[in-house]
Amino acid sequence: MRRQKKFYAWGYADEDLSADEIKAWEAEIAQRFGLNGFDVTPPPKPDEIALRAPRVAVPESLQAIVRTDQLTRLEHSYGKAGFDTTRMFMRSVPNPPDAVAFPETEQDVVRLLDWCAEIGATAIPYGGGSSVVKGIEPPATADKVVTISTRHMDKVLEVDPISEAARIQGGIYGPAIEDQLRDSPFTMRHYMQAYRCSTLGGWIATRSGGHYATLYTHIDDFVESTRMVTPAGVMESRRLPGSGAGPSPDRLVLGSEGILGIVTEAWVRLRKKPTYRASASVRFKSFYDGADAVRAITQANLYPANCRLLEAREALPGVPWSSTEAVLVLAFETADHPVGAWMARALEICADHGGMADPNADDDNAHRSGAAGAWRNRFIRAPHYGEHAVARGILSSTFETAMTWERFRDFHQKITRVTRDTIERVTGREGTVTCRFTHVYPDGPCLYFTFAGVLDKRIALEQFMEVLSTCTAAAVEQGGTTTHHHAVGRFHRPFYDKQRPELFARALRGAKRELDPKGMMNPGVLIDP
Amino acid sequence: MRRQKKFYAWGYADEDLSADEIKAWEAEIAQRFGLNGFDVTPPPKPDEIALRAPRVAVPESLQAIVRTDQLTRLEHSYGKAGFDTTRMFMRSVPNPPDAVAFPETEQDVVRLLDWCAEIGATAIPYGGGSSVVKGIEPPATADKVVTISTRHMDKVLEVDPISEAARIQGGIYGPAIEDQLRDSPFTMRHYMQAYRCSTLGGWIATRSGGHYATLYTHIDDFVESTRMVTPAGVMESRRLPGSGAGPSPDRLVLGSEGILGIVTEAWVRLRKKPTYRASASVRFKSFYDGADAVRAITQANLYPANCRLLEAREALPGVPWSSTEAVLVLAFETADHPVGAWMARALEICADHGGMADPNADDDNAHRSGAAGAWRNRFIRAPHYGEHAVARGILSSTFETAMTWERFRDFHQKITRVTRDTIERVTGREGTVTCRFTHVYPDGPCLYFTFAGVLDKRIALEQFMEVLSTCTAAAVEQGGTTTHHHAVGRFHRPFYDKQRPELFARALRGAKRELDPKGMMNPGVLIDP
Repeated sequence: MRRQKKFYAWGYADEDLSADEIKAWEAEIAQRFGLNGFDVTPPPKPDEIALRAPRVAVPESLQAIVRTDQLTRLEHSYGKAGFDTTRMFMRSVPNPPDAVAFPETEQDVVRLLDWCAEIGATAIPYGGGSSVVKGIEPPATADKVVTISTRHMDKVLEVDPISEAARIQGGIYGPAIEDQLRDSPFTMRHYMQAYRCSTLGGWIATRSGGHYATLYTHIDDFVESTRMVTPAGVMESRRLPGSGAGPSPDRLVLGSEGILGIVTEAWVRLRKKPTYRASASVRFKSFYDGADAVRAITQANLYPANCRLLEAREALPGVPWSSTEAVLVLAFETADHPVGAWMARALEICADHGGMADPNADDDNAHRSGAAGAWRNRFIRAPHYGEHAVARGILSSTFETAMTWERFRDFHQKITRVTRDTIERVTGREGTVTCRFTHVYPDGPCLYFTFAGVLDKRIALEQFMEVLSTCTAAAVEQGGTTTHHHAVGRFHRPFYDKQRPELFARALRGAKRELDPKGMMNPGVLIDP
Repeated sequence: MRRQKKFYAWGYADEDLSADEIKAWEAEIAQRFGLNGFDVTPPPKPDEIALRAPRVAVPESLQAIVRTDQLTRLEHSYGKAGFDTTRMFMRSVPNPPDAVAFPETEQDVVRLLDWCAEIGATAIPYGGGSSVVKGIEPPATADKVVTISTRHMDKVLEVDPISEAARIQGGIYGPAIEDQLRDSPFTMRHYMQAYRCSTLGGWIATRSGGHYATLYTHIDDFVESTRMVTPAGVMESRRLPGSGAGPSPDRLVLGSEGILGIVTEAWVRLRKKPTYRASASVRFKSFYDGADAVRAITQANLYPANCRLLEAREALPGVPWSSTEAVLVLAFETADHPVGAWMARALEICADHGGMADPNADDDNAHRSGAAGAWRNRFIRAPHYGEHAVARGILSSTFETAMTWERFRDFHQKITRVTRDTIERVTGREGTVTCRFTHVYPDGPCLYFTFAGVLDKRIALEQFMEVLSTCTAAAVEQGGTTTHHHAVGRFHRPFYDKQRPELFARALRGAKRELDPKGMMNPGVLIDP
C-alpha cells in the first residue's frame, strides 16, 4: 500500500511534528514577534473542499491508469509553497486537474499525451509535487487539465559499476534511489530539502540544487544522458562522459519544467559512498566575515562537499535574535583518501577571516552533532512547520537567488532591507529576515533568504504574495537570478521574463513548437505559447 | 603591423620548423614506413591559386571594414585540418568567400549582418580560423559568401578581481588574453593546441577543450555569460555565478558554431596564477594499465590539472615504435596551498596499477622537463608538421571522441583496428595509430587518436578523406561522440546526424528560425535549414 501524502501540506498524512516541537516553536515565534497566543485554523479535510466536476471523460482504455476521484485531484492541485498551503487552509481550490494519470510505462506516457492531444487537454507533468513556484498548478485558463504523475516509474534500471553511473526512471523519489543502490558501493547523494518527496525527473526538469555546496551543485552536473517523451516523440541523448557536438541536447531538457515533455529516464553519475569525512562548524563575528572566508575557500580549489554559511540565530538553538554571528558548516568527504589536508587548509582560511572552529572539528561524526548537527536536523524538519505557520497566520517563507562576489554585499544589504521594509509595509509590523549560502562558487554565492512576520489572517494570502513577489522582483532588479534552484514555474514568470534575454524566449518558443506543436505541455511556465 | 598568418597552413608566414626539426622528423617517418626519401611539393604561392571574382559589391559605407583582395580571401577559405592544407597544396580553392569583413565594433557586426541579409549572402563567423572540421569553409552551394572575422574585437574589457572573472571580447586570440591579464594576478588558462591562433568567441562557438584535463575541461565551464549578435538582434545573458532559471541561454550559444550569431563578448571565470605545482610522469607497462589508473584517479575526487595518458612511442623521443608502454603526465596546481598530499595520493593510485613515477616527480619544474616536458614541446610544435607531411604525401591526422569506462577497452580496440585496417585498405600499406587521453572524467575518457601512413600523392585528398571519415564514422557507430572538443562543422555532419536525437535537430532548427529567420548564418553546419 502506497503511503498517502498530505494533500494540503508537506509530508505524509501519517506524520507531523511532535507536540514538543510545536510548543518550542510557538514559544520562539511568540517571543520573537511579541504574541500572546495563536488563533489556530484547523487543517482542511478533503470533504470541506468542493471541486469542480471533471471536464474530461476517461476512455476505457486508460481507466486503469487515470483517476478522477476527489482526493487524488486535490492532492495534485497545488505544490508545497506557503501560498499553496495557505490556499488549502482557505479551502480554495478553483482549478484542480480534471484527471490525474499514473503511467506505468513509457508507452503509457505516449498514450496519455496522445489522449491529451486528442481531447485538447493541457498536460501537466508531475513528479513529487514539491514545487514551490506553481510549477505543477493547472492554469486557470485551461479548458481541460490532465496531470501526469510519473510516480510508478520508480526504478533504478541499471548500475554501471565501472563508470559509476546508473540508468534511473524519472518518477523515482529521492530515498528510493538510495534504497535501490543499497547493495551497491554507490550513492547518488543529490539531497535537498524536498528530497523525500521529489523525483529524479522533477530534479532534471527544474535544475534542482543538491547536497554538494560546491562543484556538483545542480542536477545538471550529474546527468550523462536523458530520455524524454514529447508530444512529437521520444528524444533520447547519447550516453557519454563528455561531448562537444553542438549545443547539448541535455541542457535543453534540464530546466525545461515540463513544457517540452516528460523525462522518463536518465543516466546519472554516482560515486562511492564516502568513507573518509571531515566536518567542522566555524563561528564568525558576522555574516560578511564568513562570506569572505567562503569566497577564499571557493577560490582555493578545495571543493568541500559542504560549505554552508548560516546566520547563527537561524541555525542554532538558543542564539538570541539580536545576534549577528554566523556559522559555517564545512565538510569534506570521499571514499578514496583521508581529507585532513583539505580540511586543515580550509580551517586556516577561516582563521584568517576570524573564524573560530568548534572543538569537534576533527570528529568524523561532527556532521551529526554540534552546530552542523543542529542545523541538519532543522533543515530536514523545516518543511513540516509550514502548515503550522499557515494555521496561525504566521508569515514564513523563503526565496533564493545568486550573485557574483563583487556585488554581493551591496546586493545582500539591499535585498535584506527591501524584505524587512516590505514585511513592515504590508503587515504593519516588523518581521525578520535571515540569509544563508546554500551553494557557493568561485565567482559568487547562492543567497537563500528566510523571512517571517505576522499576517492578518483575513488577507493572509494577499499579504504573503505581495511580500514574496516584491522581494523576488527586487532580487532580479538588482541583477540576481529569479531562482538558483527552485525553478521558474508560474510564480516566477514576471521576474524571469525580465531576467532572460527576450531572444532566448523566442528561441525556446521555436524549439517548443517543434516538440509540442499544440502547445499542450504545461503552458504558461517559462514562456507563453 | 599585424603579423601575417600562413594562408595555406598552420601558423604565421614568418615562422617554420627548423631544418634540424624537419630532418629528425623525416628520418623518423622514413624509418617508420621504410621510405628512401621524399618527393617534396613546394608550398603554394598566392598567385598560383586563381580565385573566382567576388560576387558581391561592397557598399561604400562598409569599404573601410570589408576586403576582397585575393590574399585575404585565400586566407579565409579553409581551416587548418590536413585536408585543408592538402587542398591548398593542390592549389584548389573553388569556393573562397566573396568578401571578408573585419568589424571593429559590435555595431559593425550588426551592420554587416544587415548587409548580408539585404544582399542575400551567407555569413560565416570567423575567429582564429583554426577549425579542423570545415567549420568556416564557405559552402559550395552558396550564392554569395561574406566571412566575418572578429579579430579586431580583441580586448579584455574589464577584470573583476573579487569574483575572479573578466569581460572579454569574442575576437581575442588566446595569447592576447594572457598578455592583457599580465598585470593582474589572474590567468584564464584555457590552453589547447590551437591556442595561438584561436579566439574566445571561437572557443565558445565550438565548445573547445582546454588545459585542464579534469573538472574544467570545456570552455562551457568558464562561461558566466555571453553576448551574441544574431540577425534578429543582440542576445545577452545575465552575468551570474549560477542559475536554475529555465534552460541555460548560454548553453544554446555554447556549441552553436556560428549558426545563430556571432559571439562578441563573454564574462569568463579566471583563477589566480598557480604558484604551487606538482608534476610527475608515470610509466605504465600498457595503455590499459594506465587507463585503469586514470579511471581510479578521476573517481577519487582529486581533480588534477593535468592527467594525460599517452603512448610512450608517440610522446617520447627515442622510444621504438614497437613499444607498448604508456606514460601518464600528471600535474596539480593552485595558487593557494602546497599540493603534495594530492600528488602523493595520485601516485599511490598509479603504483597500485603498476605505474613507475619518474624520479623528478617532486620537482616543481617537472612539467617543463622529463617526459612531461618532451611531450609539452611536441604538443606545441605538432601543428607545424602538418604542411610538411602534406608536401611529402604523408598521411598524418587525428580524430577524437569520448566513451564511458565500461565500454572503453572494447571501443578502443575496435577503433584502433578500424583505423589500422582502413589505412591499409585505402593506401595499400601499413600505417600507424596511437591513442591518448586529453581529458578525463569519472565516467570516461576523451580518446584522441593519431594516425599516419603513406599516401599516393595523385589521390592524396581522396585517400585522406576516406580514412578520416571511416574512422570517425566507426567511433559514432560504436557509441562514441563524433567530437569531444573539435566541433561538428561540415565535416562531421553525417556522423553528428546519426548521433544527436532527431528531435533535438528539430528543436534547434526551431530556435534558429527565430534568431536567423533567413537562414543565412553558417548554413549546413550542425543542421540544414
